[in-house]
Amino acid sequence: MSTSRRTFITATAAVAVVSKAGASAAVNTYPKLVHHVFFWLKKPDSKEDLARLLEGLRTLAKIESVRGAHFGVPASTEKREVVDNSYSASEVLFFDDLAGQKTYQDHAIHKKFVADCSHLWERVVVYDAVSA
Amino acid sequence: MSTSRRTFITATAAVAVVSKAGASAAVNTYPKLVHHVFFWLKKPDSKEDLARLLEGLRTLAKIESVRGAHFGVPASTEKREVVDNSYSASEVLFFDDLAGQKTYQDHAIHKKFVADCSHLWERVVVYDAVSA
Repeated sequence: MSTSRRTFITATAAVAVVSKAGASAAVNTYPKLVHHVFFWLKKPDSKEDLARLLEGLRTLAKIESVRGAHFGVPASTEKREVVDNSYSASEVLFFDDLAGQKTYQDHAIHKKFVADCSHLWERVVVYDAVSA
Repeated sequence: MSTSRRTFITATAAVAVVSKAGASAAVNTYPKLVHHVFFWLKKPDSKEDLARLLEGLRTLAKIESVRGAHFGVPASTEKREVVDNSYSASEVLFFDDLAGQKTYQDHAIHKKFVADCSHLWERVVVYDAVSA
């Protein structure tokens, strides 16, 4: 595919049905499988390392089975005992199913990301969740 | 609002621009703020308690500032050292901004959820992330 022939993929739109009386139909309108990853950098104060990690993370959205992506850093929400804002970067990817996640896990782009960036982090925690 | 006058809200669609050569524009097409919450039940083997927690979680999607919601349980993805599948239920909510999250946090529906369900869990971890 040349750069002039870009393919636009519209992932599942989140459509919320709001009703005052009934339960909302907004739940689980995203693709079924969500892959959350939190990274703690070895050098948490290094803006360069954070930028490199985020640059690497953004490449993951190119993997064809990824249906939606959000890459972030801790938000300045209210500090509460239950809030963990000690991480450096977060990744949320949506997949249609386990097969989509497997495609991602084994993909060359994902392997390159790990090879290029894993020296930057000291800890990573993954939570995979399926709609319920 | 009566049940016959339902309001359909189309949240931001995730539009991915895939290009072989360049960086993908798929990143961060979701609303800016993502609120991840993981719950560990006091009785992790109780299907009743899990059902009650999930029922409570689903009410949260009715809060008007919620732009998208995913409620789940651990997926049967590959077991790896970095994967935490010890939690009972997960919540992902998207908001446009910090104000939207604050509206949610202070909302009567959220307070009712905490009042009704907090006795079910022994641990909760929250990660709030803003697009980067």
